[in-house]
Amino acid sequence: MRIAVVGLGLIGGSIALAAAERAGAEVAGWDADPQALRAARECGAVRDGAGSLSEALIGADAAFVAVPVGALPQTVRQVLDHAPEGCVVTDVGSTKRAIVAAVSDQRFVGGHPLAGAETAGIGHARADLFDGATWYLTPAPDTSGVLFERLHRLLKDIGARPTAIEPDVHDTILALVSHLPHVLANVLASQAAGVLGDGERLPATGPSFRDATRVAGAPSSIWTDIYLSNRDSLIAQIDAATMRLNEVRDALQRGDAGWIEAWNNAAASDRRRLLEGEAAGGELHELRASVPNRPGVIAQIALELGRAGVNIADLALYPAPDMSEGVVAVWIAGAHSDRARQIITELGFPVARA
Amino acid sequence: MRIAVVGLGLIGGSIALAAAERAGAEVAGWDADPQALRAARECGAVRDGAGSLSEALIGADAAFVAVPVGALPQTVRQVLDHAPEGCVVTDVGSTKRAIVAAVSDQRFVGGHPLAGAETAGIGHARADLFDGATWYLTPAPDTSGVLFERLHRLLKDIGARPTAIEPDVHDTILALVSHLPHVLANVLASQAAGVLGDGERLPATGPSFRDATRVAGAPSSIWTDIYLSNRDSLIAQIDAATMRLNEVRDALQRGDAGWIEAWNNAAASDRRRLLEGEAAGGELHELRASVPNRPGVIAQIALELGRAGVNIADLALYPAPDMSEGVVAVWIAGAHSDRARQIITELGFPVARA
Repeated sequence: MRIAVVGLGLIGGSIALAAAERAGAEVAGWDADPQALRAARECGAVRDGAGSLSEALIGADAAFVAVPVGALPQTVRQVLDHAPEGCVVTDVGSTKRAIVAAVSDQRFVGGHPLAGAETAGIGHARADLFDGATWYLTPAPDTSGVLFERLHRLLKDIGARPTAIEPDVHDTILALVSHLPHVLANVLASQAAGVLGDGERLPATGPSFRDATRVAGAPSSIWTDIYLSNRDSLIAQIDAATMRLNEVRDALQRGDAGWIEAWNNAAASDRRRLLEGEAAGGELHELRASVPNRPGVIAQIALELGRAGVNIADLALYPAPDMSEGVVAVWIAGAHSDRARQIITELGFPVARA
Repeated sequence: MRIAVVGLGLIGGSIALAAAERAGAEVAGWDADPQALRAARECGAVRDGAGSLSEALIGADAAFVAVPVGALPQTVRQVLDHAPEGCVVTDVGSTKRAIVAAVSDQRFVGGHPLAGAETAGIGHARADLFDGATWYLTPAPDTSGVLFERLHRLLKDIGARPTAIEPDVHDTILALVSHLPHVLANVLASQAAGVLGDGERLPATGPSFRDATRVAGAPSSIWTDIYLSNRDSLIAQIDAATMRLNEVRDALQRGDAGWIEAWNNAAASDRRRLLEGEAAGGELHELRASVPNRPGVIAQIALELGRAGVNIADLALYPAPDMSEGVVAVWIAGAHSDRARQIITELGFPVARA
């Protein structure tokens, strides 16, 4: 099988590596940036020789377009112009309606792997980047069944879990669970900076602000395109959030303790319900342990859990203002949570279950 | 010195333990809940003998009122009624204007230690809970200087950093960096539950949703009072957030890429500036390492950093959807960050600096 990858960043580079290693594919790559192309050749992600986009596509059975969302329509069209008749063409953009609407070709299937957002560049590319990752695919009514099946199999071969989804459902869900949280984080960070003024330090107020703004200011080179290409879904979610904020505001205004309490209780059960099913290994249980915040404590807990074969699905440390102490929250899947609780307690750290 | 503590939860119990251990005080305690009172006696937080609120206050030099915010005005008045002439009386509520406005007595100083929000109950009380913690105090113009000085010294003795602040400034800052983030987390959790429907799992979309909703549905027994007692400050912050959301909405509506990019870049620098000064040990540097998500990896990193004397101020694990791999972000203070980067890299995990 011959694979072409156009756009050799983290995702494109990882596709190239995985296709070669996992699917035994011969991989040609192309990037408009000569430096990225050279780096991809040097690290072995692509074979030597492709001197142009069209050359990379010669004889390709599948082509991946891994460029920023804003450059997708033009690049996908170029690739379709040069790709062979029987070549499936897909992209990896974080929003799907715009590109699906812009392209009409039975060889094209929109795609979006949920992986790799935390680092960027071919330097972080890895063959195992997609292991177990959901890889959304948006086949259109006129998509070739043969080509869709080939892409589906190829994605499984490189370790991903291909999952078909409608482009509008995809964009609504991503607007809600990814794009809106990014917007709220940005708003909160800038609002705090505005109120606290130049040169002032954030007062020591615990971790809620830090958590809430963790994703503020994600790279504009990627995110400006994402926000804009999904703008109507995102606007709908912003409007819904604004309406909910106004409801809270009104309840506060009239001092309605019953409403506030019911609203707060509902949020608690809503979040629990949404996150419970997330882990492949069953419900996640959150355990909170009070610990002195000295070097080695987290190590000790993680090491003991590791020895017992208990995996930490997620972990957060909430330090006291002076960093001398804190609470460690660990999320443990299903049946292991009781064992984890016992282990941490036996280490001498009191555990509360959230 | 004799200390009275009224309300024996996590904060009250920790004050009792710290005052006895650190300040050599004789501590009497009282709680309207007989079970809490018995637990406090059993764990040695308070001496035997106080059979009533008034009895606990006999001969007291300082009295702490550590009950929920909604019960504060009534309880503080009761304590002032029974406290000796020369006894300083303070509270530990998360909002300050309401209680300061409700009480006019030269013996009273409002207070708020920034500690202990993550666990609840006397079972988690510790003498070192306040070590290094900012402890806001709101002295009024008629507050006795002698009594304020006594309280200030006592708080230093038990390990805290007393810091005087105006009640309205306190409540504005807390509305911004604590109460508003809690409201946004609630809104996001319930909005997602509403869209995704009953019984649906949250799709695997990375950690931004989990971080953004970490504090959703904090205990209503505490938070309903907090929201309501600070409602005008909170309403002002909600209104400001709504206005900012509408600006983003309008920029999206008109497809203004320049505005979106400038806004996103500003959020990035705003957050960096706010959080940089937070750690006692200097600026925090965020390092992101790509790691396989198997038991022991976090342990290995934390252990190696611990061995080198490098403390982890904050830590977050962003697992891939199948939990097989991920990115570990660690926040390291000042001069240690280069060393930490080297150590993690030498362990074989590529590090990107955020």
